[in-house]
Amino acid sequence: MRKSIGLKRRNRPSQSVKTTLPPGSPVFIGEKRVEKIRIDIIDYNENSIKECRDADLKECERLAKGQTVTWINVIGIHDPGIIEGIGSIFNLHPLTIEDIVNTNQRPKMEEFPDYLFIVLKMSTYNDETNNLEMEHVSLILGDNFVISFQEEEGDVFEPVRQRLRSSKGRIRKLKSDYLAYALMDAVVDHYFVAVERMGDWIEEVDDRIVAEPKQEDIQEIHRLKKNILILRKAVWPLREEIGSLEKSASHLIHPETRLFLRDLYDHTIQVIDITETFRDLVGGMHDTYLSGISNRMNEIMKVLTIFSTIFIPLTFIAGVYGTNFDNIPELHFKYGYFAMLGLMLIVALLMLRFFKRRGWI
Amino acid sequence: MRKSIGLKRRNRPSQSVKTTLPPGSPVFIGEKRVEKIRIDIIDYNENSIKECRDADLKECERLAKGQTVTWINVIGIHDPGIIEGIGSIFNLHPLTIEDIVNTNQRPKMEEFPDYLFIVLKMSTYNDETNNLEMEHVSLILGDNFVISFQEEEGDVFEPVRQRLRSSKGRIRKLKSDYLAYALMDAVVDHYFVAVERMGDWIEEVDDRIVAEPKQEDIQEIHRLKKNILILRKAVWPLREEIGSLEKSASHLIHPETRLFLRDLYDHTIQVIDITETFRDLVGGMHDTYLSGISNRMNEIMKVLTIFSTIFIPLTFIAGVYGTNFDNIPELHFKYGYFAMLGLMLIVALLMLRFFKRRGWI
Amino acid sequence: MRKSIGLKRRNRPSQSVKTTLPPGSPVFIGEKRVEKIRIDIIDYNENSIKECRDADLKECERLAKGQTVTWINVIGIHDPGIIEGIGSIFNLHPLTIEDIVNTNQRPKMEEFPDYLFIVLKMSTYNDETNNLEMEHVSLILGDNFVISFQEEEGDVFEPVRQRLRSSKGRIRKLKSDYLAYALMDAVVDHYFVAVERMGDWIEEVDDRIVAEPKQEDIQEIHRLKKNILILRKAVWPLREEIGSLEKSASHLIHPETRLFLRDLYDHTIQVIDITETFRDLVGGMHDTYLSGISNRMNEIMKVLTIFSTIFIPLTFIAGVYGTNFDNIPELHFKYGYFAMLGLMLIVALLMLRFFKRRGWI
Amino acid sequence: MRKSIGLKRRNRPSQSVKTTLPPGSPVFIGEKRVEKIRIDIIDYNENSIKECRDADLKECERLAKGQTVTWINVIGIHDPGIIEGIGSIFNLHPLTIEDIVNTNQRPKMEEFPDYLFIVLKMSTYNDETNNLEMEHVSLILGDNFVISFQEEEGDVFEPVRQRLRSSKGRIRKLKSDYLAYALMDAVVDHYFVAVERMGDWIEEVDDRIVAEPKQEDIQEIHRLKKNILILRKAVWPLREEIGSLEKSASHLIHPETRLFLRDLYDHTIQVIDITETFRDLVGGMHDTYLSGISNRMNEIMKVLTIFSTIFIPLTFIAGVYGTNFDNIPELHFKYGYFAMLGLMLIVALLMLRFFKRRGWI
Amino acid sequence: MRKSIGLKRRNRPSQSVKTTLPPGSPVFIGEKRVEKIRIDIIDYNENSIKECRDADLKECERLAKGQTVTWINVIGIHDPGIIEGIGSIFNLHPLTIEDIVNTNQRPKMEEFPDYLFIVLKMSTYNDETNNLEMEHVSLILGDNFVISFQEEEGDVFEPVRQRLRSSKGRIRKLKSDYLAYALMDAVVDHYFVAVERMGDWIEEVDDRIVAEPKQEDIQEIHRLKKNILILRKAVWPLREEIGSLEKSASHLIHPETRLFLRDLYDHTIQVIDITETFRDLVGGMHDTYLSGISNRMNEIMKVLTIFSTIFIPLTFIAGVYGTNFDNIPELHFKYGYFAMLGLMLIVALLMLRFFKRRGWI
Ligand SMILES: [Mg+2]
Ligand SMILES: [Mg+2]
Ligand SMILES: [Mg+2]
Ligand SMILES: [Mg+2]
Ligand SMILES: [Mg+2]
Ligand SMILES: [Mg+2]
Ligand SMILES: [Mg+2]
Ligand SMILES: [Mg+2]
Ligand SMILES: [Mg+2]
Ligand SMILES: [Mg+2]
Ligand SMILES: [Mg+2]
Ligand SMILES: [Mg+2]
Ligand SMILES: [Mg+2]
Ligand SMILES: [Mg+2]
Ligand SMILES: [Mg+2]
Ligand SMILES: [Mg+2]
Ligand SMILES: [Mg+2]
Ligand SMILES: [Mg+2]
Ligand SMILES: [Mg+2]
Ligand SMILES: [Mg+2]
Ligand SMILES: [Mg+2]
Ligand SMILES: [Mg+2]
Ligand SMILES: [Mg+2]
Ligand SMILES: [Mg+2]
Ligand SMILES: [Mg+2]
Ligand SMILES: [Mg+2]
Ligand SMILES: [Mg+2]
Ligand SMILES: [Mg+2]
Ligand SMILES: [Mg+2]
Ligand SMILES: [Mg+2]
Ligand SMILES: [Mg+2]
Repeated sequence: MRKSIGLKRRNRPSQSVKTTLPPGSPVFIGEKRVEKIRIDIIDYNENSIKECRDADLKECERLAKGQTVTWINVIGIHDPGIIEGIGSIFNLHPLTIEDIVNTNQRPKMEEFPDYLFIVLKMSTYNDETNNLEMEHVSLILGDNFVISFQEEEGDVFEPVRQRLRSSKGRIRKLKSDYLAYALMDAVVDHYFVAVERMGDWIEEVDDRIVAEPKQEDIQEIHRLKKNILILRKAVWPLREEIGSLEKSASHLIHPETRLFLRDLYDHTIQVIDITETFRDLVGGMHDTYLSGISNRMNEIMKVLTIFSTIFIPLTFIAGVYGTNFDNIPELHFKYGYFAMLGLMLIVALLMLRFFKRRGWI
Repeated sequence: MRKSIGLKRRNRPSQSVKTTLPPGSPVFIGEKRVEKIRIDIIDYNENSIKECRDADLKECERLAKGQTVTWINVIGIHDPGIIEGIGSIFNLHPLTIEDIVNTNQRPKMEEFPDYLFIVLKMSTYNDETNNLEMEHVSLILGDNFVISFQEEEGDVFEPVRQRLRSSKGRIRKLKSDYLAYALMDAVVDHYFVAVERMGDWIEEVDDRIVAEPKQEDIQEIHRLKKNILILRKAVWPLREEIGSLEKSASHLIHPETRLFLRDLYDHTIQVIDITETFRDLVGGMHDTYLSGISNRMNEIMKVLTIFSTIFIPLTFIAGVYGTNFDNIPELHFKYGYFAMLGLMLIVALLMLRFFKRRGWI
Repeated sequence: MRKSIGLKRRNRPSQSVKTTLPPGSPVFIGEKRVEKIRIDIIDYNENSIKECRDADLKECERLAKGQTVTWINVIGIHDPGIIEGIGSIFNLHPLTIEDIVNTNQRPKMEEFPDYLFIVLKMSTYNDETNNLEMEHVSLILGDNFVISFQEEEGDVFEPVRQRLRSSKGRIRKLKSDYLAYALMDAVVDHYFVAVERMGDWIEEVDDRIVAEPKQEDIQEIHRLKKNILILRKAVWPLREEIGSLEKSASHLIHPETRLFLRDLYDHTIQVIDITETFRDLVGGMHDTYLSGISNRMNEIMKVLTIFSTIFIPLTFIAGVYGTNFDNIPELHFKYGYFAMLGLMLIVALLMLRFFKRRGWI
Repeated sequence: MRKSIGLKRRNRPSQSVKTTLPPGSPVFIGEKRVEKIRIDIIDYNENSIKECRDADLKECERLAKGQTVTWINVIGIHDPGIIEGIGSIFNLHPLTIEDIVNTNQRPKMEEFPDYLFIVLKMSTYNDETNNLEMEHVSLILGDNFVISFQEEEGDVFEPVRQRLRSSKGRIRKLKSDYLAYALMDAVVDHYFVAVERMGDWIEEVDDRIVAEPKQEDIQEIHRLKKNILILRKAVWPLREEIGSLEKSASHLIHPETRLFLRDLYDHTIQVIDITETFRDLVGGMHDTYLSGISNRMNEIMKVLTIFSTIFIPLTFIAGVYGTNFDNIPELHFKYGYFAMLGLMLIVALLMLRFFKRRGWI
Repeated sequence: MRKSIGLKRRNRPSQSVKTTLPPGSPVFIGEKRVEKIRIDIIDYNENSIKECRDADLKECERLAKGQTVTWINVIGIHDPGIIEGIGSIFNLHPLTIEDIVNTNQRPKMEEFPDYLFIVLKMSTYNDETNNLEMEHVSLILGDNFVISFQEEEGDVFEPVRQRLRSSKGRIRKLKSDYLAYALMDAVVDHYFVAVERMGDWIEEVDDRIVAEPKQEDIQEIHRLKKNILILRKAVWPLREEIGSLEKSASHLIHPETRLFLRDLYDHTIQVIDITETFRDLVGGMHDTYLSGISNRMNEIMKVLTIFSTIFIPLTFIAGVYGTNFDNIPELHFKYGYFAMLGLMLIVALLMLRFFKRRGWI
């Protein structure tokens, strides 16, 4: 299902299994899964809407061929057989199918003669593990249909479904390109949620480090950096992707939708802006941490060293009067001992004053 | 109202509330506010000028349709209903309205068939909090009108009003594009004020750190960096925005105004230049701070260590003559004790000379 | 044979031997080798396939001239004579031949009137030395033939051979450009293997450093950095190369193959992405290492200094009562000694409490 | 007059005074000045030359309208009235006049219908303050005239005057564009002088830091960095400016002059190259300084710590024989004391040998 | 003659002498020299070749006008008079002549109506001073001739002469453009020699630093960095230069030669690649050095501090039994002294065990 930065490859087939396969081999690269793949369909035009949960491929084909806009939502991509079945109905290129089932595929937009192929990453901030998780999402934008593929149940498309059902707004009046846009917009909108959570987290760590840096914090900074890396890897290609979609000459994109794509492009830049700000902030945290740690250490060492230094001459004086010379006149003075103690006090006070004047204590 | 770097999201609705809304939903993203939104109008041509404070929408419509140039200044964007009302009169795209009320929107220029949409950030240096604050400003440049939207009362447009009223200069002779330029120019001019204040602040902190670095300074550097980040996020897109406005093929921009836009572009580059210089200077401050701190610490440790080291052999000598051997000839010399003290003095002096020669003290 | 970062030049003729030679002089630059160069041929069209191991040049010529697609695989490039022989049959430019036998040649694509010349690096992660090794591979894409040159036996092309033999898929139906693509794809697929191994290695080192940094780790980081350098030098030019191949106007590249080249381009970007992520991670490791080392050192110094500091006043007290003054009343108290011990205990406890309150222990 | 990095704004009107003024308001931004503005004219063609010191505006107008090339050199820009007078004679755009009197204006080239407007910075290395100073210089290149504006008496144009008077070379044969080029070339030539002085300074500081780093050096590095910043801010835009002048389609630039502009462009690249080298060198100095300081500190601490460590066991031995046990056999040996001294000597020597073997001393 | 990084300007006229001279003034900028300038000519076509050592200008002119290819090799550029003589024969632009005698001129290619002007830097690694030295080389590529200018006897062109004499290869069959290419190729080939020597040096220093960093090494790293700077300043413009030569529309470059120029371009990229790798490696060395130094210092401090710490409680115990209280029971035990020694041994062993468990020793 969802994947972390991609260094660990223990629990999922890795990209390297494809070494011996021909290009266009649909091998599912992702976390193992057992649920059945489910297909939900919403078919609509301005006047009517029809929903169909757990549809079969036949149904898909029939509806997609009609003049209504058909949204085929495929939940689960771990069974390449089914994905290939959909591929053969909609005449998808083998390379497209390969990319749909490869959760490592980075966001991109590719034009094929009959359709546009769009890869996205759906972001979720996992509050338990304090990690950003990315789900692999693909869209096929055809003439009267959109097919969306996602790794598992639970998505960010619910608000789009609500708008379709409520028949409010422009979505029911426009074509499949607007639907594809609406789905992408839902994904991008969700980045703001993830990014705000990360912002809270960063601020919390920053406050903690400024107040009192602890050794554990360095690991937290480490983890923050990795999460920002994950985020950057998802959003930088997104910008390029939506930019080229907006400028695409494809007949599938209508002028009216282009304005919305431009707005979406603007949103991705905003996400990138925030991400880069995070990067700068977290980069500076390491310095703050080191300064804090070294300040504290210096403070300790300074106090202790000054403390020791004050006692050194005192101990020396005691040592002198501990020698066993036959003739040490002071030893025989009546108040010699008390004079020594007084001398020690004076020495200690003088030293303290010296330290204070120098601004050391 | 005004916003800081955007990490804290406690006091204002955040971008993520829009997750479930369709694109083009005008949700006010910013600090909560209760004042009534006010609309001021100035309507003029070369010969006459008419001002109207707290106008209603009807009036707006009537004046805007006339051949005179109409400046509609909207103060307050926290009531999406009113903004939508203006939008429907002037036929603004829903996406434009959404961006007008979203104070997180970054500076940009977008061409629509009937108007140009311009987003800016008005900068104010808050002397109390020592922070840069940014107010969200939007401009609609139409054929015979300009609509400006701002978050709250009190703006940088007063000098433009004065010029309109005094009927001096070219502003009354030219069209709405020159008015839009004049408003943008007023905003950019104000960056110089903010930037000069920041320059003073940087210089002050720099002087302090060079003279005697303190632990608090690291937080000040931290804060400076965040403010420079805010500034950079406002001015870098500004440059691109004004550049594309100057080069825009829109019929709304007349050749005469282009020269002024080129000049404005030049001003934004100047602001960017200063900002980047600040960045370099503040980046270097951290090094200066660390050098200063470590210099001071080294100085302390050195003096104290040398001090201790001098006493160590002296204490050793005292220890030797404090042993209880039956046969220690020196103990029985008449002036043995004084000879020991003399020896100690000589040892101490030799060591001091050694340290001095090595350049350690 | 395979080469490391290219600093050591002890065991192979270096680039500088060419200083006195005319351009286009085929000098083998690489590890010395004695095996005979071997030529294997696979000649096929949709209907038939013929393999020929250890073929002679005559055979090559005859088959290449036919309408079938001929893949001539040359194993060993250390004998410039043979390479020149092949060159004269296929009319290769002297500069091409020079680059084929120069294992230092970086990846590139060059168009010649009759053929396209493609240089690649085949990556292998050597588990024994924990080093990435690169083998120099060149491809000549002609009208009905592809010639591949490699340094030694054992390659990543076996899966391509299997597909040719099994007659499955599109490879037998398409032309020489698809064969060249398939070979390049095999090379790029293999980068994922190398990159995954490196990822495991990085993760392992990272875990170790976070847990407990050791002095040896700095060398390991050093080695990781060098390997990432090797990888970057191979994959960055690869991207440019495949990009220009995809966009090439050469008649040798058919439209159908371009889609596959676009996919290949996408794969190289993915490898670059991972490489750059590695770079960031390994770059951060050095900081983690230094933080860890300094944390441990600070811990030791702190404990030891506190320990010493506690004993310093105790030793001072003992010193005072070790002086030989005639009149020290305390010495004659019955329990004076025990009182002193008690005093010492109290002093030690007070200091410990002081340290604890300050958070130093 | 001349300005430093632009942070301090105490002694001159700052950019922000313009906040309330309309665009194109000529406000002198620079050091206050009282001298009268002076205008010198040189009017020439191939056959004759006429010089006129302290000319009035009428004279300017008369000569400029003639077919001869007229160079009008304006010394002093602190009186906007006079500059506006010149502006109205030569039909200069208000924005041009504003930039002429704004000493903060960065180098740029702007084409206006009738003239080219060129802003430059004249560099001087002030040997007394060890600072680079920049003087604001503007050029107006018109059809038969060039107007140069500078802040104060004393310029780098004297060699150009000499060449004009001596009637040698091509300058008298060519048009106003060559004169403008010659003036710019004189300015750029002067950067080499400034840059060489800075090079000497850098080298001197570098030698000093390598030999023995002192605390004051860090301030010197600081100052070097600021000067390099000033230099960079002047020369980077210069490059772009001269590049666009060379490529300008303006009829004012004749083909013959373009070759010279290309050469000038080359010179600015050379200045930039040197500047960037300085930046790298000064950047590295900080590291050298820190290494040097820490080396010295380490050396001191090491020697002192080793010294203390040797005495610690010796003092311990003395302590043991200073105890007052009834039964310490060694104390009653005849040569016990001397044996103890011998033992101490042996212990000290063994420790020294141990330290030496470890390479610590 | 040869120049270092260009900071020291004691022994040669500096660029700044040109401040008072008109553009195009040929002033020799380089090390003073007294030898006579020598001109060698090789004149050839496919069938015949004629060499002429120490030719005079007349001869040059006569041969260059013929249909054969004439290579005029000028050794010494310190006498501007002779260079101007050549310039007037071949109609060279004054700016070209100025650049020929200016050894500070960076590599560039400039097209003039009748010829191409090419500036290069010939690299030599001086084994004695361990420094890279650069010699200033200029080429004039005319219709039937090439003129090469170099600072002093001894060049890298000998292999080209051999090829011309031996009449082997394509050089005698092709035109002056191929000759110019061959000369440039000889220069670039020589960079590989210099770069390999530097690689050996870097590797040697790296090994030394990893094994045991010494204080002198920091200077060596410093010197390495300066040499890499020299190299970068020579090779980066070289790439641009050869690139624009390859793409030049000049009729002087024949299509056949373009393939060779493309190859040369590829070689310069290879040199740049190596240079950048060096930069990364040397950049990392500083970190390795610092880590090594601090590791060693930490090691020393740790051992010494632990050592001292063990003795502190022992000395305390001795101190306690050195007090002169009347009533210290232990002192009168028969084996009290030995018990104390035993106690000390136990304390020491316990502390050692504690340190070992903590992993400190
Ligand atoms: Mg494969
Ligand atoms: Mg893939
Ligand atoms: Mg899902
Ligand atoms: Mg959205
Ligand atoms: Mg928007
Ligand atoms: Mg950034
Ligand atoms: Mg939404
Ligand atoms: Mg928005
Ligand atoms: Mg306001
Ligand atoms: Mg302005
Ligand atoms: Mg201006
Ligand atoms: Mg910068
Ligand atoms: Mg440090
Ligand atoms: Mg060669
Ligand atoms: Mg080559
Ligand atoms: Mg190479
Ligand atoms: Mg092989
Ligand atoms: Mg592949
Ligand atoms: Mg793919
Ligand atoms: Mg990166
Ligand atoms: Mg203004
Ligand atoms: Mg200005
Ligand atoms: Mg002047
Ligand atoms: Mg010049
Ligand atoms: Mg020149
Ligand atoms: Mg640089
Ligand atoms: Mg000059
Ligand atoms: Mg020059
Ligand atoms: Mg030479
Ligand atoms: Mg070569
Ligand atoms: Mg690099």
